[in-house]
Amino acid sequence: MPDQPHANVIQELLGELHASFSGVREGRVADYIPELAKACPDDFGIVIATSGGRIYEIGDTRKEFTIQSISKPFIYALALKTLSFDFMASKIDVEPSGEAFNAISLDPDSGKPRNPMINAGAIAASAQICDADPSGAVDLLLDYFAELAGRRLSIHEAVYRSEKETGHRNRAIGHLLRNFNIIESDPEPALDLYFRQCAIGVTCRDLAVMAATLACQGRNPFTGGQPLSHDITVRVLALMGTCGMYDFAGQWLHDVGIPAKSGVAGGVLAVIPGRLGIATYSPPLDNFGNSVRGVAVCRQLSAGVGLSLFNQYFQADATIRRSYHGSQRKSRRWRSERELEILAPHRDEVRIIHVQGVLDFGGIEQLAAELVRLSGDVRVLILDLAHVTECPMESSGLLDRQLCALEDQGVEILLSRAGRLPLVTRSDWTISDRIDAYAHLDSALEAAENLLLSWYAPVVDAENGAADGLTEQGVLAALSEEHRRILVDRMVRRSFAAGDVVIRRGDPGDELFLVRSGSFDIALDIRTGDGLSHSTRLATFGPGLCFGEIGFVAQTPRTADITATQPGACWVLHRDAFEELSASHPDVVIALLKALTCDIGAKLSQTSVQLTLMEHY
Amino acid sequence: MPDQPHANVIQELLGELHASFSGVREGRVADYIPELAKACPDDFGIVIATSGGRIYEIGDTRKEFTIQSISKPFIYALALKTLSFDFMASKIDVEPSGEAFNAISLDPDSGKPRNPMINAGAIAASAQICDADPSGAVDLLLDYFAELAGRRLSIHEAVYRSEKETGHRNRAIGHLLRNFNIIESDPEPALDLYFRQCAIGVTCRDLAVMAATLACQGRNPFTGGQPLSHDITVRVLALMGTCGMYDFAGQWLHDVGIPAKSGVAGGVLAVIPGRLGIATYSPPLDNFGNSVRGVAVCRQLSAGVGLSLFNQYFQADATIRRSYHGSQRKSRRWRSERELEILAPHRDEVRIIHVQGVLDFGGIEQLAAELVRLSGDVRVLILDLAHVTECPMESSGLLDRQLCALEDQGVEILLSRAGRLPLVTRSDWTISDRIDAYAHLDSALEAAENLLLSWYAPVVDAENGAADGLTEQGVLAALSEEHRRILVDRMVRRSFAAGDVVIRRGDPGDELFLVRSGSFDIALDIRTGDGLSHSTRLATFGPGLCFGEIGFVAQTPRTADITATQPGACWVLHRDAFEELSASHPDVVIALLKALTCDIGAKLSQTSVQLTLMEHY
Repeated sequence: MPDQPHANVIQELLGELHASFSGVREGRVADYIPELAKACPDDFGIVIATSGGRIYEIGDTRKEFTIQSISKPFIYALALKTLSFDFMASKIDVEPSGEAFNAISLDPDSGKPRNPMINAGAIAASAQICDADPSGAVDLLLDYFAELAGRRLSIHEAVYRSEKETGHRNRAIGHLLRNFNIIESDPEPALDLYFRQCAIGVTCRDLAVMAATLACQGRNPFTGGQPLSHDITVRVLALMGTCGMYDFAGQWLHDVGIPAKSGVAGGVLAVIPGRLGIATYSPPLDNFGNSVRGVAVCRQLSAGVGLSLFNQYFQADATIRRSYHGSQRKSRRWRSERELEILAPHRDEVRIIHVQGVLDFGGIEQLAAELVRLSGDVRVLILDLAHVTECPMESSGLLDRQLCALEDQGVEILLSRAGRLPLVTRSDWTISDRIDAYAHLDSALEAAENLLLSWYAPVVDAENGAADGLTEQGVLAALSEEHRRILVDRMVRRSFAAGDVVIRRGDPGDELFLVRSGSFDIALDIRTGDGLSHSTRLATFGPGLCFGEIGFVAQTPRTADITATQPGACWVLHRDAFEELSASHPDVVIALLKALTCDIGAKLSQTSVQLTLMEHY
Repeated sequence: MPDQPHANVIQELLGELHASFSGVREGRVADYIPELAKACPDDFGIVIATSGGRIYEIGDTRKEFTIQSISKPFIYALALKTLSFDFMASKIDVEPSGEAFNAISLDPDSGKPRNPMINAGAIAASAQICDADPSGAVDLLLDYFAELAGRRLSIHEAVYRSEKETGHRNRAIGHLLRNFNIIESDPEPALDLYFRQCAIGVTCRDLAVMAATLACQGRNPFTGGQPLSHDITVRVLALMGTCGMYDFAGQWLHDVGIPAKSGVAGGVLAVIPGRLGIATYSPPLDNFGNSVRGVAVCRQLSAGVGLSLFNQYFQADATIRRSYHGSQRKSRRWRSERELEILAPHRDEVRIIHVQGVLDFGGIEQLAAELVRLSGDVRVLILDLAHVTECPMESSGLLDRQLCALEDQGVEILLSRAGRLPLVTRSDWTISDRIDAYAHLDSALEAAENLLLSWYAPVVDAENGAADGLTEQGVLAALSEEHRRILVDRMVRRSFAAGDVVIRRGDPGDELFLVRSGSFDIALDIRTGDGLSHSTRLATFGPGLCFGEIGFVAQTPRTADITATQPGACWVLHRDAFEELSASHPDVVIALLKALTCDIGAKLSQTSVQLTLMEHY
């Protein structure tokens, strides 16, 4: 059935939720203005929008209704964004009121509204926004909600007019706030903005996107825009948690554990921080003014599938994706026998740690614990950051300090694949001036091996005899002196500049190369899991090593490019010379083929073991 | 400096926290009984205990003080554990009271205490525990606290006596509860248990371990014991969140966002669900009865390093560790040319998905989204579960349904490395009866290839000519008919039973094997990141393939065992025959060595590409 999309159990779950509560007949549609009373009590929609940018929906999810009080957390956020935190703290408290949504709830001394989730708080917030830009406030509002919902929203004129005409209680609140100087000018524009924001038309789907934006710390996961900062979002979620849904502060959090806000038109918006936005639409309300079916859906998601702030599973050291010794991973530079011997006893002085996810406090703690466990023998740490998705401000300083402390203790740190993380280029990140960053893990591995060689081996002059491809240090070490002489008589020396393509994919495999000096890379375009093609080095060859042998022996076209990465030279054996040699000196050809077999065999063993080690992760 | 332990920035942070608040001189030590008044106001300890089982501590962390009200969440949990949830709901409400810790706060109609975090609630809970086992209650209590703290705790006799003698208000509460029949017998034993539990001696370190046990959903991460169930732990955390710290319910959650509980002796216990337990000890109290320095530490951890329930980072699809096409990963069974040709156009009908972490609702959603995105061409799904740490009850049903739905749509599912997850053997997991589980990913990959071969290739008789190692289908395909005849004249046929060791590590490499029939495995002990040695197959050889060639050509001892995994036969070339052939028919030896070079070369290319693909993750 290739044409049928695969079933998704989350979508099925939503269908079941919808079916189990669509028959509920409790609650009453709000009727304090005629426009609201027109709502159909059977309308029922549920949407889940994930932080990953996916949407699941069922029922009446595209029908418009007015946002009403669900605008409150967003208006408060807009006020925080437009004005300072301190200024807003002087205008509105953040205490749960323990009173009904339309209670006046002002502090008897200061006149400050108890919190921004009650009408008084929202009117006070609207007044500050109006004062900041009297003529532009409505445009600001609509632009802002467009960013939150990912589409242009508009104000339902009839609801706005009706609420404005009948909003006597709210008007009274406005004047009381003026009396206490919480509102510092004529309250009417603030009230107008308040009535307009409550009358914004939304669908259940819009609310879910707005909820997901709160779940993503202010970033809209569908548009990539960032209408709210991280700081503001955390405050708004805390307010929704403590003052969002019930008269009795805290009860909702205890029972359901999901920050949420409801509106009298029947909407409910709920947030699982970091993960999901949830929205429901069903007009009949309970005595608290919350949608009956909306509350039931939230309760079921909390009790049935464990969505609650307090129900968080232990992620066992999830930040450490892998951690292993240097002997478990070699770079793609093929090393000569001599280098391999020098490296062998010291490879475990290198440690490779791959970290993943968000490096928040918990993540840094896990990394720090892994670093503290490092053996005192470790002199080089490769820290691979390819799978780190974020390093928040409040913890990046800790990471910086942890790495600096390690460097101070004499450990060389090489960062690998840190490119996606802006932190390494941030000015407050001191470690970035001290450590080297590599675009590829393989380059970091090679750099680590080079450090070991610089510590434990005398400098080798690449052009001297010991590094010559035809001496006892190279691939042909097993050949007798005479066999080597016979071979070299038939080879030509060829020099290359850095960047020269020595072998080109598709060319006939007519030559065998023995490296005399320099460095030569095989690169291949590899299609990885993301579907993209990456040019990746398969191997690097230095003095004494041989390349091009497979196509040469098999007489097949070249399968990859080989490029000189620095100036160098090779001994080259052409097929014609090889054929002549097969007839005249079969013993030399047999010795050469044996040497090649052994060389490739050793590489195959090493690569197979490396692959097996990789697969263990 | 190999002997100096590496610096840990978390430990440093704790030191800074301690330094910045140790100078605070506000607050007063509780003095309502003489024993408490003896406490030293300068005492100050901070401990963080992680879900991963690590402890960071600074200051007076090993000094004993009495637990006091911090016992309350645990006593309520013990009551829930001893009796049913429903029964306890009939005895104690879970509403934030908005009143002081020693307020009587009973529901005027039912007489039920508002919540278990006030004295009345804790006395009512103690009464139920007493009633369940009147003579064993104290032992039960102490055994339970030993599990929570990971060590035996004892009751501070002087404090207990003193509180018992002066606890008139609590005694009044006991009798009021008796009056309402919340306590159904003499309240004195309940009060005695209450006074004892408040007088349990703990250190700051004990409290941190208890907090970490709550963070780990009831599992003590230091002992591995499970004193509390997941369900109970979630309820207790919610209560601590809404009723734990302040008179004014919700304010603490809004400002700090960390479920916590304090005691009048100066302890504070705080929990970051899923992650950390935090404890502080500092006797001077504020007007609410909370430790001044303890509150300051919690506030600083929330504001400074972002520890709050509402501050949760978006983990972008963290459940999908890797996801890739079948063409990006081949099994370790080397395939004949013919099999490779059959597999090549169909490999992408296999998909491999590695999942990781906790498969809770969010995790299942990410997996479901990945599965829904699968191309309709995918006929085999390998689901690798090696890195899944937990699949909670409330979401395992969703996983089961998702996998069953996929199977119903015609996708074969192969589970790999599911062994650590108990769910696959659980009776309510229907999928386990329908799908195959493999202990190794490599076995699952081979099974997937075998499925493709069974669908797209006619059955090959392993014993017929086409599969014979010396025909045109094998390694020696490039050899002429005559060269093959000359070779076979010098080879012997050898048969093996399943389990026979064909090549033993350390043996001289005197023989070259060409598989005629059966299946042969190379296994190697590999030391992985966990430091353990695993026997892992490096490769499997079937008909037409050759093994043992590297040691044979290099004349080196065998480096790994090779075992027959089913009955089979090989053609074997001994070194003596090879040497004789080198002299008599060098052209045959050259052709043989070329064929071996090509064969190993092809394997090296394939393995290098596989390794490069692996390294991209």
